[in-house]
Amino acid sequence: MSVSEGILRVVLLGGVGEIGKNMIALEYADDVIVIDAGLMFPEADMLGIDLLIPDASYLVERRDQIRGLILTHGHEDHIGALPYLLPQINPPIYATQLTRGLVEVKLNERHLLRQADLHTITDQDVLHLGPFTVEFFHVCHSFPDSLGVAIHTPVGTVVHATDYKFDPHPVDGRPTDEAKIARLGDQGVLLLLSDSTNAEVGGYTPSEQEIGETFEQLFDAAPGRIIIATFASNLSRVRQLIEISRRHGRRIGVTGRSMVNNVRMARKLGYLDLQDGELLTEEQVDSLPAHKVTVICTGTQGEPMSALVRMSMGKHRQIRIRPGDTVVLSARPIPGNEEMINRTIDNLFRQGADVWYHELSEVHTSGHGSREDYRKMLRLIRPRFFVPIHGEYRHLVLHSRLAHSLGIPRDRIFVVESGQVLELGPTWCRLAERVTEGHVLVDGLSISDLDQGILRDRRQLARDGFVIAIVALDEMTGQIAAPPEVLTRGFVYEQEEEDFIEMAKSEIWRMLDDGISRAALNTRLRQTLANLCYEETHRHPMILPVVLTV
Amino acid sequence: MSVSEGILRVVLLGGVGEIGKNMIALEYADDVIVIDAGLMFPEADMLGIDLLIPDASYLVERRDQIRGLILTHGHEDHIGALPYLLPQINPPIYATQLTRGLVEVKLNERHLLRQADLHTITDQDVLHLGPFTVEFFHVCHSFPDSLGVAIHTPVGTVVHATDYKFDPHPVDGRPTDEAKIARLGDQGVLLLLSDSTNAEVGGYTPSEQEIGETFEQLFDAAPGRIIIATFASNLSRVRQLIEISRRHGRRIGVTGRSMVNNVRMARKLGYLDLQDGELLTEEQVDSLPAHKVTVICTGTQGEPMSALVRMSMGKHRQIRIRPGDTVVLSARPIPGNEEMINRTIDNLFRQGADVWYHELSEVHTSGHGSREDYRKMLRLIRPRFFVPIHGEYRHLVLHSRLAHSLGIPRDRIFVVESGQVLELGPTWCRLAERVTEGHVLVDGLSISDLDQGILRDRRQLARDGFVIAIVALDEMTGQIAAPPEVLTRGFVYEQEEEDFIEMAKSEIWRMLDDGISRAALNTRLRQTLANLCYEETHRHPMILPVVLTV
Repeated sequence: MSVSEGILRVVLLGGVGEIGKNMIALEYADDVIVIDAGLMFPEADMLGIDLLIPDASYLVERRDQIRGLILTHGHEDHIGALPYLLPQINPPIYATQLTRGLVEVKLNERHLLRQADLHTITDQDVLHLGPFTVEFFHVCHSFPDSLGVAIHTPVGTVVHATDYKFDPHPVDGRPTDEAKIARLGDQGVLLLLSDSTNAEVGGYTPSEQEIGETFEQLFDAAPGRIIIATFASNLSRVRQLIEISRRHGRRIGVTGRSMVNNVRMARKLGYLDLQDGELLTEEQVDSLPAHKVTVICTGTQGEPMSALVRMSMGKHRQIRIRPGDTVVLSARPIPGNEEMINRTIDNLFRQGADVWYHELSEVHTSGHGSREDYRKMLRLIRPRFFVPIHGEYRHLVLHSRLAHSLGIPRDRIFVVESGQVLELGPTWCRLAERVTEGHVLVDGLSISDLDQGILRDRRQLARDGFVIAIVALDEMTGQIAAPPEVLTRGFVYEQEEEDFIEMAKSEIWRMLDDGISRAALNTRLRQTLANLCYEETHRHPMILPVVLTV
Repeated sequence: MSVSEGILRVVLLGGVGEIGKNMIALEYADDVIVIDAGLMFPEADMLGIDLLIPDASYLVERRDQIRGLILTHGHEDHIGALPYLLPQINPPIYATQLTRGLVEVKLNERHLLRQADLHTITDQDVLHLGPFTVEFFHVCHSFPDSLGVAIHTPVGTVVHATDYKFDPHPVDGRPTDEAKIARLGDQGVLLLLSDSTNAEVGGYTPSEQEIGETFEQLFDAAPGRIIIATFASNLSRVRQLIEISRRHGRRIGVTGRSMVNNVRMARKLGYLDLQDGELLTEEQVDSLPAHKVTVICTGTQGEPMSALVRMSMGKHRQIRIRPGDTVVLSARPIPGNEEMINRTIDNLFRQGADVWYHELSEVHTSGHGSREDYRKMLRLIRPRFFVPIHGEYRHLVLHSRLAHSLGIPRDRIFVVESGQVLELGPTWCRLAERVTEGHVLVDGLSISDLDQGILRDRRQLARDGFVIAIVALDEMTGQIAAPPEVLTRGFVYEQEEEDFIEMAKSEIWRMLDDGISRAALNTRLRQTLANLCYEETHRHPMILPVVLTV
């Protein structure tokens, strides 16, 4: 497969809801590079689905043309699809040290590490991948060592700003590399792709220093243990909490599988300066004087098996919440999780803890810029064309308006959907075809297109359960060979079940007495039961008639 | 049943999550009065449940002792359980005119109106119900003509402040009756029960006048139609929108069943001053010049069948969204609904509308007070005992701390759960037993205790579907009478289904070939299939073996 000479194609692959979030491909003539390979979590009505990954069929068709896969940072929505994609495509992968560390853990679990072609890069490196010359610029985000990407192509430069904010006082002292971004802008940028997550939020995103001050006050006031849940991937926050704890004479306990793994990795790679003596065992968390203990854990989203949720229900293996504990949820609720988060907070209060969360206090700041950050990026880059990415549709619309207000003409701004292809020449940009709906579902071992059939069935079963009726006919005589069987689950309440089944059986007998042809039997069984179910309950269970010939 | 002389019992009935929200009973000697009879919507993991109502068994046991049921206002969480309770208890019901109007609509739909004993009251009335003397005070809320209740009992006065805020500039010009509340406080109040909904929110709740100003600006700027979704029960907001529309020369279209019904009722009772000529038919909404049209509709929570959601998907019978339309979601997202709301907003943007919602603009103000409102209530009433109600557990804790900071000793504040009974004498208050878990489920026609069995089944079906295997045995010989049947739904994806069923059948044949006793057949079928399912898919469907004797 080859693209017409002189045309750059930008393909937004993947992303349920958040457009262009998980994977983007750039294609010129016979060469392709890919940026990120992330996963998304399913929406509430995708019942039973574990996660979603970008539909990579476009890349599989071009597998031999892929010169490199660049990972901008180590968050799940940027690296989480790798274990699913590597068996299909296996290009050289470029990532900073810490991102690579997380990728290695992930691939190792799936026995895929050996076959992966991993390369460590820094923001100072320059890669030559076919016709693409790729440089990087450091961006400040809730993941240390995140990279923005500038791809110099034969038709012009594309800047992919990935997730970023212009925090002047980040935890690691490394702000976003404005000088390099400005230099790229001065050299001329054909297309900017830029994060839109917080397009609804005015101002600059508050600096990590500010929540540092909130935490200082919290630590000053806390009479007992401090237990803080944050995203396991938010290693900047973890680092900040370690430093504050140290200043307050507290040692650190870590609990929750992904938190333990990430902290171990980040210590090994030198991103977290935490001495063995500072780290508490779970036993010490319970036995040391309370004011000497900080616990960092998972569970900000109320995930049922997470450390914080187990604590909130008194089910954590080691740590019992007790009056005097201060618990902090240091994260934003991801839409859809509010109910589980609120339930967790309620249960923590019930256990006697003092609980701090985003509604009450500035215990979290976003890793993503806000509208002023976006303005700054647009002003520094001054792109000819602009495509807002990393956001749901409304965020892209709001970001596009902001770009327009800074002087970019409307016809140079493209608000697109997942799966969209853009084509660019040195002076133009146009929408081309859509190559995919953008994502495929992972459900246990199945990787499948969005199958509305199975999801529709699950939704019906979730709401009203099912009823099955089995009628056995004698092969020779066509007569009923055994009394009808009726089975149901998820439909009638315990105290009603026996009555319902008896009623269903007598309805079936009555129907059979009328003398029905074999051909019509299925349909009539279904009708009879559907009518009965609705009359008796006003519900619509799934109805499955089975006619057995014996 | 009779309570010891000299003891007042306060029973908090109902409320999933929000404690003491839906129904409270007061009991003294042989007499009971009830305040409110509301419903709650199910939590996300209560699959297939339509709604929850208070467990009224406590009242049913005392049905002949109930002297009256007082409705504080007409919101669903205060009146919605009436159709379910009236067949069980039928006391005199007291409500203001508009609340009564909504109750009549609701009871009429269920053919229960004729048997209901309804009485219209105003905030000036005094009721003598057995040993209780009941007075009322007007409170400002998002429902006009809401009533706070003061119950004078032989042991002292109980004030139930219900949902309220101290808005100095409400739409109807009737602020909360501070003078009467202060007078009650001066006379001495034994117990205050007070709303805690916004205990996380500092300051006073912004006045409706402020969002009026936001709307004025929006109306000034809108080039075309203005389409505003709000709660159908928020008649204060509807009134405000009608007045602003009138000032801007716009006529009003109303769509969405509950909005149409409520507006009709409120016009009839004189709460909405809307002339026939001002009201648009749905045809006129599409044909009048766009700048002369306001549409008020349902759908703020992204409810699938609501008017706004149908518009957002291009499926509304009459109204097509078009570029130039301004759409406003004038409500707070109820936790759990965010995903559906966001999807609706995205789709409205896709249709070309300009969309305003709570993240972007002050297009809604709560009908509930905030922490300063709560302080004011506590200062005016100065109760001896305080029980925060109308909130989830964390809200009650926060409200209790606020009360303590105003000087109420900790041992006079009770943070309780639904179903709790409090007992009071002239100088004391203590926790008594818990009488119920608080709520029962409504699922179609079934009204049932929380049946974890059916919900567990539905959750399993929702996640992984089911597999059924049917084996028919000859009654005489015990031999297999027909080939095994395997049926599955919600488990395997379309392209895998045929293979799976074949595999399952051959596993069953293999198992049967081993020669299994009739007694062990069920168990072995289940094991065999469970193993196969997990090996092939890593999923855990519900497995139902059926052994038929023919």
